[in-house]
Amino acid sequence: MTRVGVLGATGAVGQRFIQLLSSHDDFEIAALTASSDSAGKPYKEAAKWRVDTPIPDSVADVDVLETTPEAVPNDVDLLFSSLPSSVAERVEHGFCEAGYVVSSNSSNERNAADVPLVIPEVNADHLDLIEVQRDERGWDGALVKNPNCSTITMVPTLAALDRFGLDRVHVSTLQAVSGAGYSGVSSMEILDNVIPHIGGEEEKMETESRKLLGEFTGSEIDWHDVDVSASCNRVPTLDGHLENVWAELDDDPTVEDVFAAFEDYAGQDLPSAPSPLIETFEEPDRPQPRLDRFLGDGMAVAAGGVQQTPDGVQYNCLAHNTIRGAAGASVLNGELLERDGWL
Amino acid sequence: MTRVGVLGATGAVGQRFIQLLSSHDDFEIAALTASSDSAGKPYKEAAKWRVDTPIPDSVADVDVLETTPEAVPNDVDLLFSSLPSSVAERVEHGFCEAGYVVSSNSSNERNAADVPLVIPEVNADHLDLIEVQRDERGWDGALVKNPNCSTITMVPTLAALDRFGLDRVHVSTLQAVSGAGYSGVSSMEILDNVIPHIGGEEEKMETESRKLLGEFTGSEIDWHDVDVSASCNRVPTLDGHLENVWAELDDDPTVEDVFAAFEDYAGQDLPSAPSPLIETFEEPDRPQPRLDRFLGDGMAVAAGGVQQTPDGVQYNCLAHNTIRGAAGASVLNGELLERDGWL
Amino acid sequence: MTRVGVLGATGAVGQRFIQLLSSHDDFEIAALTASSDSAGKPYKEAAKWRVDTPIPDSVADVDVLETTPEAVPNDVDLLFSSLPSSVAERVEHGFCEAGYVVSSNSSNERNAADVPLVIPEVNADHLDLIEVQRDERGWDGALVKNPNCSTITMVPTLAALDRFGLDRVHVSTLQAVSGAGYSGVSSMEILDNVIPHIGGEEEKMETESRKLLGEFTGSEIDWHDVDVSASCNRVPTLDGHLENVWAELDDDPTVEDVFAAFEDYAGQDLPSAPSPLIETFEEPDRPQPRLDRFLGDGMAVAAGGVQQTPDGVQYNCLAHNTIRGAAGASVLNGELLERDGWL
Amino acid sequence: MTRVGVLGATGAVGQRFIQLLSSHDDFEIAALTASSDSAGKPYKEAAKWRVDTPIPDSVADVDVLETTPEAVPNDVDLLFSSLPSSVAERVEHGFCEAGYVVSSNSSNERNAADVPLVIPEVNADHLDLIEVQRDERGWDGALVKNPNCSTITMVPTLAALDRFGLDRVHVSTLQAVSGAGYSGVSSMEILDNVIPHIGGEEEKMETESRKLLGEFTGSEIDWHDVDVSASCNRVPTLDGHLENVWAELDDDPTVEDVFAAFEDYAGQDLPSAPSPLIETFEEPDRPQPRLDRFLGDGMAVAAGGVQQTPDGVQYNCLAHNTIRGAAGASVLNGELLERDGWL
Repeated sequence: MTRVGVLGATGAVGQRFIQLLSSHDDFEIAALTASSDSAGKPYKEAAKWRVDTPIPDSVADVDVLETTPEAVPNDVDLLFSSLPSSVAERVEHGFCEAGYVVSSNSSNERNAADVPLVIPEVNADHLDLIEVQRDERGWDGALVKNPNCSTITMVPTLAALDRFGLDRVHVSTLQAVSGAGYSGVSSMEILDNVIPHIGGEEEKMETESRKLLGEFTGSEIDWHDVDVSASCNRVPTLDGHLENVWAELDDDPTVEDVFAAFEDYAGQDLPSAPSPLIETFEEPDRPQPRLDRFLGDGMAVAAGGVQQTPDGVQYNCLAHNTIRGAAGASVLNGELLERDGWL
Repeated sequence: MTRVGVLGATGAVGQRFIQLLSSHDDFEIAALTASSDSAGKPYKEAAKWRVDTPIPDSVADVDVLETTPEAVPNDVDLLFSSLPSSVAERVEHGFCEAGYVVSSNSSNERNAADVPLVIPEVNADHLDLIEVQRDERGWDGALVKNPNCSTITMVPTLAALDRFGLDRVHVSTLQAVSGAGYSGVSSMEILDNVIPHIGGEEEKMETESRKLLGEFTGSEIDWHDVDVSASCNRVPTLDGHLENVWAELDDDPTVEDVFAAFEDYAGQDLPSAPSPLIETFEEPDRPQPRLDRFLGDGMAVAAGGVQQTPDGVQYNCLAHNTIRGAAGASVLNGELLERDGWL
Repeated sequence: MTRVGVLGATGAVGQRFIQLLSSHDDFEIAALTASSDSAGKPYKEAAKWRVDTPIPDSVADVDVLETTPEAVPNDVDLLFSSLPSSVAERVEHGFCEAGYVVSSNSSNERNAADVPLVIPEVNADHLDLIEVQRDERGWDGALVKNPNCSTITMVPTLAALDRFGLDRVHVSTLQAVSGAGYSGVSSMEILDNVIPHIGGEEEKMETESRKLLGEFTGSEIDWHDVDVSASCNRVPTLDGHLENVWAELDDDPTVEDVFAAFEDYAGQDLPSAPSPLIETFEEPDRPQPRLDRFLGDGMAVAAGGVQQTPDGVQYNCLAHNTIRGAAGASVLNGELLERDGWL
Repeated sequence: MTRVGVLGATGAVGQRFIQLLSSHDDFEIAALTASSDSAGKPYKEAAKWRVDTPIPDSVADVDVLETTPEAVPNDVDLLFSSLPSSVAERVEHGFCEAGYVVSSNSSNERNAADVPLVIPEVNADHLDLIEVQRDERGWDGALVKNPNCSTITMVPTLAALDRFGLDRVHVSTLQAVSGAGYSGVSSMEILDNVIPHIGGEEEKMETESRKLLGEFTGSEIDWHDVDVSASCNRVPTLDGHLENVWAELDDDPTVEDVFAAFEDYAGQDLPSAPSPLIETFEEPDRPQPRLDRFLGDGMAVAAGGVQQTPDGVQYNCLAHNTIRGAAGASVLNGELLERDGWL
């Protein structure tokens, strides 16, 4: 068993980390950290547990640690981070300098030239950028990022379509409230309403997609030149981001070609990787957040509503934003880091 | 006062007709019709009143009539129709043959060559197609349609942008449940969920937009050649359709140019016409359905979130789907019919 | 394996039956029936599957049968019924006459003198009423009912409190929309709203509770004389009925006494029976529907918010209305019927 | 016109104050205060306006003042307060000492012996307690409170029933999220959920009801001895508290007697007082929050679902929690203070 820790273990994503890791076959939770207010308290007191499965016995009485390299045991090999982006850079750097490998869901540095931004099924080879990172930063550890939840939902489908020559993407998102954390969206804002703006989200989708779909040249990532134009909306759903996508393509695939491209897109042989990665629906009204967010234990991407357009295709895709789109994404990157010998 | 009737007065749109007409300065309700089950009952018994203002005293005890020309008094000059599209064609034709002018919200025949499909602020001159219609069909009456709620929300903004050369539109809709009528969307379908499909809605947006933006040549409508690609979603809001629009344009207007085009777009001098027609927001998170659907007493279109894209602009627009998008649209067409002498 | 059938397999409760039975250790699905419209179709076509786990492979391609004794194989030993109450009596009687044992969730005949109304943990001995039933009705089969979902949520807690002398109960329910079936509550009725009335529900809670808590004398049920006064509300939640209960008691138990009575209340040794039956919470804001409805795999009753009042106690209780409150209740009765040798 | 000010003008209740006061016939807004962060800014910048009518022109550009007696002009005669209860006592005392009359919605000191807690239609005569207050505290000004929103909803109906001898009340509340302010209830807490606890709410209902229904002896309030037992729930509605009430009575009134008592209960002749005060419904499924919260412009109490019980009656009542239950309640008290010569 690999001993792992969770930085920022009491928040919404932190609780998902614990839910996923507490039953993991290869990872064992050996450290939970939070802000200094919580340090020293048993986890069950420090966290207001709000996942709809009970708090795991294995963590309930574990004392929460300070979020510093000194506080975390040396035999921990891998850290998962869901720190607020305002503090993440400073704190994550400290751990990397101290020799820890950090698989982070925080949004800082995702576009940095020497930070691998990885979805294992899409661009596992970008992990080799760690060597560049260690050279440049002088770290024994390493920092790996997963993309934003709205990006993760779409990029596997774009990667599958890239065989047809991906030119341009328009995407409209219908995002669940859990993406903003426990107190991110107030009920007075969202009941009987939609908020047609999520700060910074459109830019994340536009840039992260290009880096993820890029080529690793051996020394750097050559970004894909796809032009993504996003419009992001918050809707009154709890979990599951649904996205309407139009992809302009060089080729002219049929609907059947597109379904085949989705269904054939290769997964990864990792404990948390779903098989298939992309689940498809013939019914025009699927996928739907509440019905389909738990496909592949929340790690699959669902796709449907495929139609030809004059210059490509349109379709809908969906993923569970706090599992595949956040905690599960970091765990999957952790599994890849272990398998490929980076720990 | 012009004496008017409502065909299909007990449903969701029918109740909105009554709410709007009961306080109208120029129209007086003189006939309410419904299915034969309801005929003969006082309106307050026939309709399960579900609007959040009390049932108007002026209609509460009025007996509901059969939906036939024989049952409706001869001195009624104008009929508003919100009949189910399955029966609307047959019934509406009967009234037109009997000499009634029908302003209809039903979806049948919207694309027929001799049926005016009208938004008064966009294409009031299309009303002259009534002469063609009367010639061809031998009617003394006339049949005029307003477009679908999702189309009405977007087309005023497209009309305003057409000065920049409108080429192509991608639009994603977030539509309220009231658009499907009282029992159209069950709570088990939509709570904590989104349904990424509304039967026939995408086609309506794609065709109706082209007809509305077309030119009346004197004998027919020359449809606009804009290519609209729509993706329609039902979300858990009660009223108000929000739409994310990308418009590809020949010219390259700035954000300020687009705001000016929206703000300058001319309204109509009709009792129910809002002024301005398009209300704009600088705040990136507006318009929102719950906060902005009642602008212009539910008859305005709200727009915001304007951004340049490589080939045009993206923005969001919003309208109240059962007022501007249904009952209010028909009433406004009725006001235009009266002003222009068609009654 | 006992071969079982589901009568009315395509509806909301029917789908829950299939979800629960498809992974059952002792029961094997051998017949699925529905209305004649669906008969002959594969189940996956006949049912619009709406549970958030995929349709089980074992039933997807099974042909749906007519709901008649002739259509159901003779080697089926136990039938679960979720027929609409309007047809249930006639149909269920037909099956009982033909020798089938029917565990029914339908509301008809729950108060009939010779029909056992059973919650296994509360009144398993009432099952002996089957002998009276067979004598009186001349059946080889048998008909057993479980109570209404709102009754099941409360009665285990009342049974636990009866040691303190149960006199009078006031109960206010906050019931989820799934209790009314897929199309029972429209979204326009319930979004941003509460409906303070559910037809017949208050009477069900008042009478069923007295029968369930009654004594079987050997020939009949001597109903408990507790006076229950219920007020039933529909709220915008999907699953999980929450109830505020005030119980007037002869004795004067402390809060600790009440917690102990709940925690000590004995369960049953049956495959679907949860252990403990009643899960308690110290936190005053629990149980909550979304967080706690899946306790005991949806078969537990949760209780919390216990406070003393001048004449007894008040508390809150919760159960999953379509599992413990409907399909799971019938399955549990089926397990009891098998264990006690009634099949 | 009486010149009035609003203390704490930027919050949810503060915005309701401004919505109500900006069109008031007798009151003119002359001062808006907020925390020192907001002081000096135009109101439209200091407040994130979230009411669904546009921000009134008359206040949009008014500079927000510090919440101190020095900052408020001397010619302001009446202040409305919706300060957080943590700071309200200190701040309100400062204004009262400086000679201002304060009509406050804040929860502090509602049960103080010399502070009038008033619903004008129920206990207008309690206002004479101001003389005691001035004597004891040495103030030139005065402090008057309105009760909590959940109390206001119920007490007019209890006052109407007191003619039958009110003994004991059980009440279960289904309260809207706006009662907790803009950020009080997060969407992740309440979507698809109910929270069966609102801190301090049950105690408020139990004590405030007794004070409101009490008798003013000339020197103090002799509290009513009714025993109220409340259970308070937060539900996913925006506005409008619904309450299920059981009232035990000495007499045995019929349902008709109860309706008559509600309908005959006298209102007040004040600008914001609705007529009738209590609107009744025969339909068993009314009142409902979304349909009925705006009765009497949000100032009426709605009642329905009346049934006899063995020892009294049960019924449902409803009021708009931020109008009748908060800002409107304070404004109405302000109107009473003016009419009765206390300004």
